[in-house]
Amino acid sequence: MSDAQSLLDSAKAWWSTDIIDIHPGKIGIRGYPIQDLIGKLTFPQMIWLMVRGDVPSKQQAQLLEAALVASVDHGPHAPSIAIARMAVTCGVDLNNAMASGINVLGDIHGGPGQQCMELYEQIAAAHDGTRELADVADDVLGGFIGAHGKIVPGFGHRFHPIDPRVEPLLGLVANAASQQVVSGHYAAIGRAVEAALRRRTNKPIPMNIDGVTAVIFCELGFPPPMGRGLFILSRSVGILAHAWEEMQNQHRIKGPMPKEIPYTYTGPRDRKLSDQ
Amino acid sequence: MSDAQSLLDSAKAWWSTDIIDIHPGKIGIRGYPIQDLIGKLTFPQMIWLMVRGDVPSKQQAQLLEAALVASVDHGPHAPSIAIARMAVTCGVDLNNAMASGINVLGDIHGGPGQQCMELYEQIAAAHDGTRELADVADDVLGGFIGAHGKIVPGFGHRFHPIDPRVEPLLGLVANAASQQVVSGHYAAIGRAVEAALRRRTNKPIPMNIDGVTAVIFCELGFPPPMGRGLFILSRSVGILAHAWEEMQNQHRIKGPMPKEIPYTYTGPRDRKLSDQ
Amino acid sequence: MSDAQSLLDSAKAWWSTDIIDIHPGKIGIRGYPIQDLIGKLTFPQMIWLMVRGDVPSKQQAQLLEAALVASVDHGPHAPSIAIARMAVTCGVDLNNAMASGINVLGDIHGGPGQQCMELYEQIAAAHDGTRELADVADDVLGGFIGAHGKIVPGFGHRFHPIDPRVEPLLGLVANAASQQVVSGHYAAIGRAVEAALRRRTNKPIPMNIDGVTAVIFCELGFPPPMGRGLFILSRSVGILAHAWEEMQNQHRIKGPMPKEIPYTYTGPRDRKLSDQ
Amino acid sequence: MSDAQSLLDSAKAWWSTDIIDIHPGKIGIRGYPIQDLIGKLTFPQMIWLMVRGDVPSKQQAQLLEAALVASVDHGPHAPSIAIARMAVTCGVDLNNAMASGINVLGDIHGGPGQQCMELYEQIAAAHDGTRELADVADDVLGGFIGAHGKIVPGFGHRFHPIDPRVEPLLGLVANAASQQVVSGHYAAIGRAVEAALRRRTNKPIPMNIDGVTAVIFCELGFPPPMGRGLFILSRSVGILAHAWEEMQNQHRIKGPMPKEIPYTYTGPRDRKLSDQ
Repeated sequence: MSDAQSLLDSAKAWWSTDIIDIHPGKIGIRGYPIQDLIGKLTFPQMIWLMVRGDVPSKQQAQLLEAALVASVDHGPHAPSIAIARMAVTCGVDLNNAMASGINVLGDIHGGPGQQCMELYEQIAAAHDGTRELADVADDVLGGFIGAHGKIVPGFGHRFHPIDPRVEPLLGLVANAASQQVVSGHYAAIGRAVEAALRRRTNKPIPMNIDGVTAVIFCELGFPPPMGRGLFILSRSVGILAHAWEEMQNQHRIKGPMPKEIPYTYTGPRDRKLSDQ
Repeated sequence: MSDAQSLLDSAKAWWSTDIIDIHPGKIGIRGYPIQDLIGKLTFPQMIWLMVRGDVPSKQQAQLLEAALVASVDHGPHAPSIAIARMAVTCGVDLNNAMASGINVLGDIHGGPGQQCMELYEQIAAAHDGTRELADVADDVLGGFIGAHGKIVPGFGHRFHPIDPRVEPLLGLVANAASQQVVSGHYAAIGRAVEAALRRRTNKPIPMNIDGVTAVIFCELGFPPPMGRGLFILSRSVGILAHAWEEMQNQHRIKGPMPKEIPYTYTGPRDRKLSDQ
Repeated sequence: MSDAQSLLDSAKAWWSTDIIDIHPGKIGIRGYPIQDLIGKLTFPQMIWLMVRGDVPSKQQAQLLEAALVASVDHGPHAPSIAIARMAVTCGVDLNNAMASGINVLGDIHGGPGQQCMELYEQIAAAHDGTRELADVADDVLGGFIGAHGKIVPGFGHRFHPIDPRVEPLLGLVANAASQQVVSGHYAAIGRAVEAALRRRTNKPIPMNIDGVTAVIFCELGFPPPMGRGLFILSRSVGILAHAWEEMQNQHRIKGPMPKEIPYTYTGPRDRKLSDQ
Repeated sequence: MSDAQSLLDSAKAWWSTDIIDIHPGKIGIRGYPIQDLIGKLTFPQMIWLMVRGDVPSKQQAQLLEAALVASVDHGPHAPSIAIARMAVTCGVDLNNAMASGINVLGDIHGGPGQQCMELYEQIAAAHDGTRELADVADDVLGGFIGAHGKIVPGFGHRFHPIDPRVEPLLGLVANAASQQVVSGHYAAIGRAVEAALRRRTNKPIPMNIDGVTAVIFCELGFPPPMGRGLFILSRSVGILAHAWEEMQNQHRIKGPMPKEIPYTYTGPRDRKLSDQ
């Protein structure tokens, strides 16, 4: 084989993928012709197929769908939303505004679902049948707090005493478990963490939206990084809706507060270069 | 009223929104308590509610859903996908990789659906009943090409002679029209543009994915900028799936081609500062 | 030549560039060995060399440098800065925070310098020696306002009655013109636009930072898109400094206003799905 | 004090900063009137002032400047550069293209300088005078490799056997040390790491651009995160230059390889939904 052929082969392999196969007039998604999927799969089923490679049942997809519906927005004061709204007033288009907003769904703003899934998986792995779940939760939670600090992702909310999205979602998980769509094991783990936190702190630190979507994503078999990925798909809807609402207002260069409200300058004053 | 109160009121108004109302323990989306929507609305219905303010019928949402399903991916050679794959090899997380990819869904890569919707709306506005649709399409298309150049968004494909996503989607539109879910008017307009292009160029330049999703979005009453916004929500799925696949490969600093294949340097050589 | 060789050649040509040539142990920038530039060129000279392909004189580079120094920051209420500060509190790193901020330096927030250069170049092209510059400025400005609206990029400021950055920079241009480093022609054009605006509106709308840096960039021969590009390089310094200051504060999920100040919800209330 | 006043005060304090003070007609940077800085400070001095709060000497700034000059570009195959070039072909503007590129200067692509500074600072802290620097370097390096893996940031290069940017920069450090501009201590630490790596591996793993700029930034007293921040300012120049070059080519939707070269599909084939 010539050197050219060898290099060309490495170029072809460089972008190899299991996801999509394209030829003129043909598009295969994970091995399915695209025309077989259009009108047949729901959008959540397509999300699942793309990320994981197989088509989920309708019931599995409905549970995923409920999580996607629940997380779309938490108001214009969330940095991801505020950023997208400010962006469109600076003369960029929706794709750019969405990108600047999605970009900040980082470890703190977009990562708690993923981190909570990691916590649940640690408990699941440690819960080998020799001990009560409550004891395992106490131990693993103690180690987690020792490693990561006292803010436990998925539990407590700085705004909502009770997160109104939690019970409806847990109800759907319970229903799915009763129909053997999921095991219900991670719902029990989530409840166990909640109880362990209360024992540890003597106050209620209830499960929040990240904690309950982490239950759902673990029940459905998604790996922890998808806790972030799926949240991004959901919150992108809110980012789009807010960017579009702001775009219609036609503000120009919208800052974080009205310009009549000054910010406080806290640095030195009246310096001269000659002072040096 | 004090000045402080007045400034505070302007601060409160600065981030006013029609989309979401939040109080401790309560989240209202477009006036609906979030707990009434979870498990009740499909994800496409939620997208519609967030962007437009009202809940669509199941049939309307299914047509939107088919369009969202159809556009998720067009392979790792698409810049948006390639960028996200390269990004994760540089040590950033999924939100950042998705942002860098989504950011490039600009006028050329993510805008044709929006531009095609604008073309369709121009034809719809000009088709006042006094002339045949074909004549109107010829005229408006001529003006559009004069203003924007010969690449007509939504028609023709540099890779697919026939885009396999078009007929299934048009079939769903026809079905929805037969049930009075949509009017079918924009499907007729899309077909009229296709025919006008053929008359104009003497060759087939068939409708592509952007042209057919533009039909659907117009049929459902979305404004043209949502052609871009909804496409972004769809393509984000592909961007996530590819970023995640690449992340599992654990490459480090993946460039566009294998490093064994050099690029060509085309500039000057062997210059010296003293030559100046 | 084999097909493989032909494809491989097209791969090599795909990323061809005039800017940089790299071989093991060798890096050439625009034809200069990198080791000849380090310690010899100033950073502004290197910016010029990279963007334009030749090394400017020290005097040219000093004028560019003054423009780069002048534009680094305009406070935390500028969206680009506020976005970067909010970003670091969301758990992303400096590169991501800077990206989200730089991304919004769009047509309105980062584009006025570029647009002003286009205006100046239109005047320069129309000023063919047959008419007074003032008359040409009146005409071109009239056309510009007709096409783009009454906000003339580079003139007037919503905050500063007189922009304190303008006179020092114009002084440097005058000095450079007196030494034949630049022609001074674009400084005259800028002043002519200022005078034409006053005649047109009967009030002072003085040159601002975008108008004066546009003078400098035009005097130095940069094309209009570099008005945006060079501004980005300058403002990136402010974005970095603010992101870094905020990072040291260790806030978590900083929104645009303190969470004690609510935003106003302006949408419908108390809707029920069953109302439909 | 009224509640409104109290809330307003918290709003004013929300965006407080030590960096910039703005009033109508006045801009103060770290306490200096902007007009005193324009034409007086070099761009590297301004970068230093913005990030650190004081004005460096010319000699300190020249050393910083050399590091900024050295890192501007490493060719179109670097993901940050390739991404920016692809971006402009998708119909976005220079600010967006630069943002997508800068965004990927993450832990692997943009972080080694920062990580290397952390390593140097660990050695500096451990080198308390009781032991030889070589022994300290051996120990700290061993711990570092144990914690982070065998790729030591700042040393070795997958492309250059000898990085041509290193010796000129070390020469400038030596010169600055001879004039008491810097201590030279971190240059010694860098050399000690290089020697320790050779002892450890029995092969040369020479200092690279990240290792030598880390020396300079540590010598000048920058904290490790600025290793990333300053690199971003430098590499932004290359990203801009390449984006601008590509923009002039007027390609549309440039993928990572010519479209004649297919990628390899490695997933399943010919699946049917009914197979489930």
